[in-house]
Amino acid sequence: MRMVVNQGELEDKIVMTSKAVAKKTAKPVLSGFLFEVSSEGVFVNATDLETGVRATVQADEVEGEGKFVVDASTFLDIVKNLPNDVVVLEYDEDVLNISSGRSSFSLSTMDASEFPEFSFAETDSFVEIDTSILEDMIDKVIYAAATDEFMKNLNGVYWEFTDTGLRLVASDGFRLALIEQNLESTLGMSFLISLKSMKELQNVISNTSEPAVRLRYDGKRFSVEAGDVQVTMRVVDADFPDYRRVLPKEYNTKVVLSKTEALDALKRTMIIAKKGSDAVKLEASEDGVILTSRSPDYGEAREELEADFEGENIEAAFNPKFLQEAFRNVDTEEIELYFVSSTAPLKIKGFEKEEYFYIVMPIRLA
Amino acid sequence: MRMVVNQGELEDKIVMTSKAVAKKTAKPVLSGFLFEVSSEGVFVNATDLETGVRATVQADEVEGEGKFVVDASTFLDIVKNLPNDVVVLEYDEDVLNISSGRSSFSLSTMDASEFPEFSFAETDSFVEIDTSILEDMIDKVIYAAATDEFMKNLNGVYWEFTDTGLRLVASDGFRLALIEQNLESTLGMSFLISLKSMKELQNVISNTSEPAVRLRYDGKRFSVEAGDVQVTMRVVDADFPDYRRVLPKEYNTKVVLSKTEALDALKRTMIIAKKGSDAVKLEASEDGVILTSRSPDYGEAREELEADFEGENIEAAFNPKFLQEAFRNVDTEEIELYFVSSTAPLKIKGFEKEEYFYIVMPIRLA
Repeated sequence: MRMVVNQGELEDKIVMTSKAVAKKTAKPVLSGFLFEVSSEGVFVNATDLETGVRATVQADEVEGEGKFVVDASTFLDIVKNLPNDVVVLEYDEDVLNISSGRSSFSLSTMDASEFPEFSFAETDSFVEIDTSILEDMIDKVIYAAATDEFMKNLNGVYWEFTDTGLRLVASDGFRLALIEQNLESTLGMSFLISLKSMKELQNVISNTSEPAVRLRYDGKRFSVEAGDVQVTMRVVDADFPDYRRVLPKEYNTKVVLSKTEALDALKRTMIIAKKGSDAVKLEASEDGVILTSRSPDYGEAREELEADFEGENIEAAFNPKFLQEAFRNVDTEEIELYFVSSTAPLKIKGFEKEEYFYIVMPIRLA
Repeated sequence: MRMVVNQGELEDKIVMTSKAVAKKTAKPVLSGFLFEVSSEGVFVNATDLETGVRATVQADEVEGEGKFVVDASTFLDIVKNLPNDVVVLEYDEDVLNISSGRSSFSLSTMDASEFPEFSFAETDSFVEIDTSILEDMIDKVIYAAATDEFMKNLNGVYWEFTDTGLRLVASDGFRLALIEQNLESTLGMSFLISLKSMKELQNVISNTSEPAVRLRYDGKRFSVEAGDVQVTMRVVDADFPDYRRVLPKEYNTKVVLSKTEALDALKRTMIIAKKGSDAVKLEASEDGVILTSRSPDYGEAREELEADFEGENIEAAFNPKFLQEAFRNVDTEEIELYFVSSTAPLKIKGFEKEEYFYIVMPIRLA
């Protein structure tokens, strides 16, 4: 088997495929790319058995056919650094020869028949969404997911296809982020996708130049297709909690802050907070907002912020990192905070925006 | 004690002082900045007992006098993030109050009387050198020093003041880098400065805006003065080896390579080399230069380079990282390589340049 391919095209496709390569694995073949070359085209595949990526490599010339598995990190490193646009790959007797300009490599390969099947059953129905919109939706919720893999039902992002569109929700039990987007069609399904799969999907979405992607569900797996690259994700076998229970329906205090000022003040109070109990106290009244933090060994910080205020005076403490992540993800320069009480969930959202919001639980004041 | 100081001035001075703060220390006071405020001015000091930095802070207003030690990383973090140019520091009853705009901090302090003396005896004689020249000289040799602190006589940079100027030399026993600069005066001394002190000096030199620095030696310590910032370094109590013994005096093969091409080719051969014996074989002849590397598990890499060639054919193997660091530090696009034999030190230098060169020992070919 021999093929000629453009360096940029090959690099693009293996970069998108690379994140699905298994990191630590007892099955060496999973640390490689499976290349499949036939009259149907050239495909590169990787999977960690939870997520799979399959990409078509647009080759300039192909002779013969064959399958081989090559160590992914070595191959990626080589392709990224090749000196010339024209790359020739030749596979013969278990050796892959790569040549470009005056550089050449002979790489050992692994047995393609050992590479596991991780495919998606083709479906007719799909939902189309702008790539940039989906990328932004994922960015705005993914950080709120639990990072502990043992918390199976929170270690991921919940995809909820409603009658009117798509809603993504993530929560680690202490805070929750939710974003909605109207769409013309629906898959009529809801499922949880693991954080690991979500990160592999993010890698493909952020590297593709396709303006829109297609979402499909085959009964077991969820797939996102960006042109000739397809990401297939196993749906998590766990129920995402009933998040609607924690969404506050009313409020007793409303505060509007400047995002820039609030983020700067938070950053300073965090210097002291991280040396102590990792908490920042927020006091809101007609006079504005006061943030304070305290460490028994290092001292205290105090910040005053101007704020629009409405309702009852309030005092509540929060993990400052959880506030910071919420504020950063709000699109408007003014941020709205809705309090019920010192111990009830706080709702944070953009100024007069409804499609994205964030809920955070206070820390009990000592 | 109360003082008003510009945020930028305070940040600049504590950034330069900060690298001398002890990292891991059994003496907590060494993890702080010592502030000394009197009619003579405001000074900030830090030391790890091997290097000390003392800087004058140009305050806008000073009332009273006093000394205190404040945790360096907390103070630096706070000062970097203050919201306003005007910073007020007040020290009273062991508490340091910092205020700027609507931010305020109260920090615990440590006992200034526990802070050790690490000073430089003033000398009349000094050598002046352009800051940018000294910075470049240090950059071009420091990476060749041994990083192992137990190799006391190689874990540093050798400063040799000759009749005509300054020579810096560093070596880890496998390679050596040497750079010379003519100067109008000399300290008439040679001494070894530890890698740790050198890095603290680099921090000051790269952060100062002074065009020239003054070098002094007081019989025990070496000092570099950049305007109102002074770095004092303990001279290492060990003899730097007689490096002149290893400098090749003749050659049997001369090769001239393109720096860009050679660095690119090296980078590619390193992908395979690092999976194997970490060696790259270099073969030079009338036809040019061939670089090869091999890994029993992953395969082989081969690179061809155009080269000007003079003398006998040669074949030698090297640690590719040692070649890469040498090539990167050569200022010219053409690099000269002088070989004696497969087992003798290779000399690398810029095209028709004499003031900087690099010597590297080959690896024995299997």
